[in-house]
Amino acid sequence: MPVEEKIDSFLEEVRGLCDPHLEDILTPGARHAAVIYEAMQYSVFAGGKRFRPALVRAAGEVFGAEERAILDVACGVELIHTYSLIHDDLPCMDDDDLRRGKPTLHKVFGDGIAVLAGDALYALALEVIARSGTLKIVEEMARATGTEGMIGGQAADILFEGKEITAADLEFIHTHKTGSLIAACLTSGARLGDATADEVDQIRIFGAAVGLAFQIVDDVLDETGDSIILGKKAGADRERDKNTYPKIHGLENSRHMALTLVESAKNELVLPGRDTIILNLLADFVVQRVM
Amino acid sequence: MPVEEKIDSFLEEVRGLCDPHLEDILTPGARHAAVIYEAMQYSVFAGGKRFRPALVRAAGEVFGAEERAILDVACGVELIHTYSLIHDDLPCMDDDDLRRGKPTLHKVFGDGIAVLAGDALYALALEVIARSGTLKIVEEMARATGTEGMIGGQAADILFEGKEITAADLEFIHTHKTGSLIAACLTSGARLGDATADEVDQIRIFGAAVGLAFQIVDDVLDETGDSIILGKKAGADRERDKNTYPKIHGLENSRHMALTLVESAKNELVLPGRDTIILNLLADFVVQRVM
Repeated sequence: MPVEEKIDSFLEEVRGLCDPHLEDILTPGARHAAVIYEAMQYSVFAGGKRFRPALVRAAGEVFGAEERAILDVACGVELIHTYSLIHDDLPCMDDDDLRRGKPTLHKVFGDGIAVLAGDALYALALEVIARSGTLKIVEEMARATGTEGMIGGQAADILFEGKEITAADLEFIHTHKTGSLIAACLTSGARLGDATADEVDQIRIFGAAVGLAFQIVDDVLDETGDSIILGKKAGADRERDKNTYPKIHGLENSRHMALTLVESAKNELVLPGRDTIILNLLADFVVQRVM
Repeated sequence: MPVEEKIDSFLEEVRGLCDPHLEDILTPGARHAAVIYEAMQYSVFAGGKRFRPALVRAAGEVFGAEERAILDVACGVELIHTYSLIHDDLPCMDDDDLRRGKPTLHKVFGDGIAVLAGDALYALALEVIARSGTLKIVEEMARATGTEGMIGGQAADILFEGKEITAADLEFIHTHKTGSLIAACLTSGARLGDATADEVDQIRIFGAAVGLAFQIVDDVLDETGDSIILGKKAGADRERDKNTYPKIHGLENSRHMALTLVESAKNELVLPGRDTIILNLLADFVVQRVM
């Protein structure tokens, strides 16, 4: 099977496993909470690639984790990812009207419900992860999505908007707002299995590099992509004078940096006795879109 | 020592233990995250009573939990409480300008940073709770603060604003938006110690009743209180046509309902061999302000 097909079929398989489980998880319980569940469902089933669940599953399989635990944690990280997009799209943040070709949540449900739906998704994610994970996984996931991770990156992104930025500061933003969660997806999967502390560290370094490449590719696509294919307005970053890799490093350099990051990450991931093919394929998937 | 003094001295002790620990927890790590830490500190040290940490500690002591674990979980719930206030005060939610006599966070740091600071506090809370708690505690805390708890109540509160509401629906809002977290504080403390499943259930029922009383008292004080003492604008609920106990049941009835709830909760809490004095005192504290 050609590489692209292998990745597509893995992502397809993950979607096939995760989506019914996400539907179960998002079944309304408490009366009066129907609107919140509706809002959560709207965003969770808006057409995401399930790339982060795929990372959990890939790492979980490398280290022989149990299917059911993988599924819970995989769905948990997808809920976290969705929450971050909802809050990120708010008028007081990136103010985006379109996401994956559909109106953003706050455009449909209002800002108040969008804030609450994001909050609720994060709470639900931690509940689901705690159900099947370990305390270490919960702690690491909370940290990766907090001030020392995702939120720290988001905050810096907002604070630097329209300001001069150094390459190092931009790297900080990208590794934190995007890289932290991607790395945590991989380490969670590894921890669900029998990964040693050293293997978890290696996986984290691999994930951080792939995560940075992921955000660089996102920047490149915002600059070069087609709005229809992107499902959101292309050129939005430039319009808002956001700090992006193409803005600082130029388009060709950015593309090259992403490719180099993924190549080095793959070369440096040495896990004797473990089959890491699928991890390498997912890393390739990240840069595929700009090749 | 008279009852009031005993409660005050217990709350004072909890504050003395929690505040230095909260300062440690809120020490900036990642560069560029300074503003988020500043925002978190602004709200966490805005003069809260530390009532929820006191509940964790009280329940923890009843069941012989370890001091250090109590402290982590107690600080965690205070971070959660603060996060809920920050998001609740946002213009797209209750739109409050004043909290505990100080401008609300978004008034000082802007709406975007306020959303992120709330998100960050919640993440940090779960991280701290996972560090010293159990998976069951994390799971229960996430559930109590999600759609089946606090967020479910907040959403219903927003959706019913300005609309006719039944007494049952109003009770739903209050038990969820306020009662769930208060009950979870108590069950967490109990779980940190050696409480049996049956004892945890009893504690939860006690907490739910006390939590409902707490929110009823809040409603009453909004109606009758002085803006200076409240630290926020009195009469704000009525102005926004919010659904409150005084609006539905009248002022005197509401006061009576809160007192009755606390009395029954105390009477029904029977834990042979356990010293529950401090739990009863904290329940009294809830209604003290309207006696």
